[in-house]
Amino acid sequence: MADAAYTPPKVWTHDKENGGRFAAINRPTAGARHEKDLPVGEHPFQLYSLGTPNGQKVTILFEELLAAGHSGAEYDAWKIDIGALDQFGSGFVALNPNSKIPALEDRSGAEPFRVFESGAILIHLAEKFGAFLPRENLARAEVLSWLMWQMGTAPFIGGGFGHFYAYAPEKFEYPIDRYAMETKRILSVADIRLGETEYLGGDEYSIADMASYGWFGALIRGDAYNDAATFLSMHEYENVARWVRLLEDRPAVRRGRIVNTGKMAERHSAADFDAIEDPSVLEKVRWRSLEPADD
Amino acid sequence: MADAAYTPPKVWTHDKENGGRFAAINRPTAGARHEKDLPVGEHPFQLYSLGTPNGQKVTILFEELLAAGHSGAEYDAWKIDIGALDQFGSGFVALNPNSKIPALEDRSGAEPFRVFESGAILIHLAEKFGAFLPRENLARAEVLSWLMWQMGTAPFIGGGFGHFYAYAPEKFEYPIDRYAMETKRILSVADIRLGETEYLGGDEYSIADMASYGWFGALIRGDAYNDAATFLSMHEYENVARWVRLLEDRPAVRRGRIVNTGKMAERHSAADFDAIEDPSVLEKVRWRSLEPADD
Repeated sequence: MADAAYTPPKVWTHDKENGGRFAAINRPTAGARHEKDLPVGEHPFQLYSLGTPNGQKVTILFEELLAAGHSGAEYDAWKIDIGALDQFGSGFVALNPNSKIPALEDRSGAEPFRVFESGAILIHLAEKFGAFLPRENLARAEVLSWLMWQMGTAPFIGGGFGHFYAYAPEKFEYPIDRYAMETKRILSVADIRLGETEYLGGDEYSIADMASYGWFGALIRGDAYNDAATFLSMHEYENVARWVRLLEDRPAVRRGRIVNTGKMAERHSAADFDAIEDPSVLEKVRWRSLEPADD
Repeated sequence: MADAAYTPPKVWTHDKENGGRFAAINRPTAGARHEKDLPVGEHPFQLYSLGTPNGQKVTILFEELLAAGHSGAEYDAWKIDIGALDQFGSGFVALNPNSKIPALEDRSGAEPFRVFESGAILIHLAEKFGAFLPRENLARAEVLSWLMWQMGTAPFIGGGFGHFYAYAPEKFEYPIDRYAMETKRILSVADIRLGETEYLGGDEYSIADMASYGWFGALIRGDAYNDAATFLSMHEYENVARWVRLLEDRPAVRRGRIVNTGKMAERHSAADFDAIEDPSVLEKVRWRSLEPADD
């Protein structure tokens, strides 16, 4: 990369370490790397996940469903340690051949089956319980559109901006510029939308909001990628900030966001939230200042 | 980038050209850049798109629906010239605030409404006509999972690998390695799956196949990103190749893939396919050789 006259080989080969902090994770081939069964709890839904923005989507939906009285939505949330390569165990790969969290096993019917990719899990559960995804034409189309928009843009934020700004082995100027611009463009789309409507999908809270919350929330609070809130001038996105606070007023969001994190490694019942070490994390989400940078 | 000791500024600003071939397109802010209404035809569905892999998803589904006898799926396909910045016109932005193709206006009911993001359009149309998306638990979950997998991985292929391998202003070694590895991993996931099942979603052809076809088809035929088929050793993915040929045996796929391309700028009726300059493009899809590179 330091050599501006780099010429790619005719055929790419996997012959060097590549990937910065997550180098050991990355390979050009898929599939299980070791035998390992997954644990199974007693609830109808078995979630194998991690409390990242993609994992939070699903635990927030489960907590919202339970809060809304859908007692059939009880779930066991098992932590997948991606640093320990749990996602390449045979049991996990059988649930998600793409080796990414979250993965779900639906055991609510006669025959258990898998659902993988956070967006698919959101649609599956929303349809199953008839909640947070409207059935009617226009309203449904809006929620599906904004959900898909989240699925298709997050790779530019996480795999693009986050990687090159925070995790790559060197600071490379061109990719940082490329993905900072795209991340700001995505935030601008959200900010314009949330200046017009209460929620991303329109007047009603939906799985589209749950999908975007973890990503935008972490950026706007300053929790993501070192000092990225300053770098990206997150104070510019006032409507996004309004919406993040709106979601964080919901107890189910505050519960869902800590599942499968250091604050709560696993979740097997509502009582687990009573037993966490620092209950204040369920009361209020702390934000760093969102003032513009001085210089 | 040539300077390995690059240090990002405290606050990112849009103060340099960035983006290679598509530099003029990219800005850190969203929204309309000029006033421009969209044309509207006589059919119930108005599609504003371009014959890229994301655009092909929807035109293939429309052609499949019509071929299956759903005469209500008649559509007008208008070409959005992204080089001419059509996607930033006020009419297009009203349909898709994210300024990407494809965008759809559904005028089949009393009140027209928008659907944007290719994945959302696929689900919307499949549900509307009850085709190519199973209703039942397991089968539906598989199709939704593989569809979402496509939505979440394509940005690593197109915005990642394609950009750095073919479009960036310089060849940067680290990002090329990063995205070549990830693209091969994604292809490996597909190849393993398609060694086990006929179609991505299982035994039945579905919108999950339509979503992935344009992306994998172009790579495996050698049509994408200059000589990327050699660089990525596409001959390794025999099951993907089997599946691409299976889809290309379908006349509706061969029709859908040329809509909004140089072969057919717009599509307003089935008769438009009879009028194209070179009808052989509807007969057979030509592939480059997929032999391994000599050296």
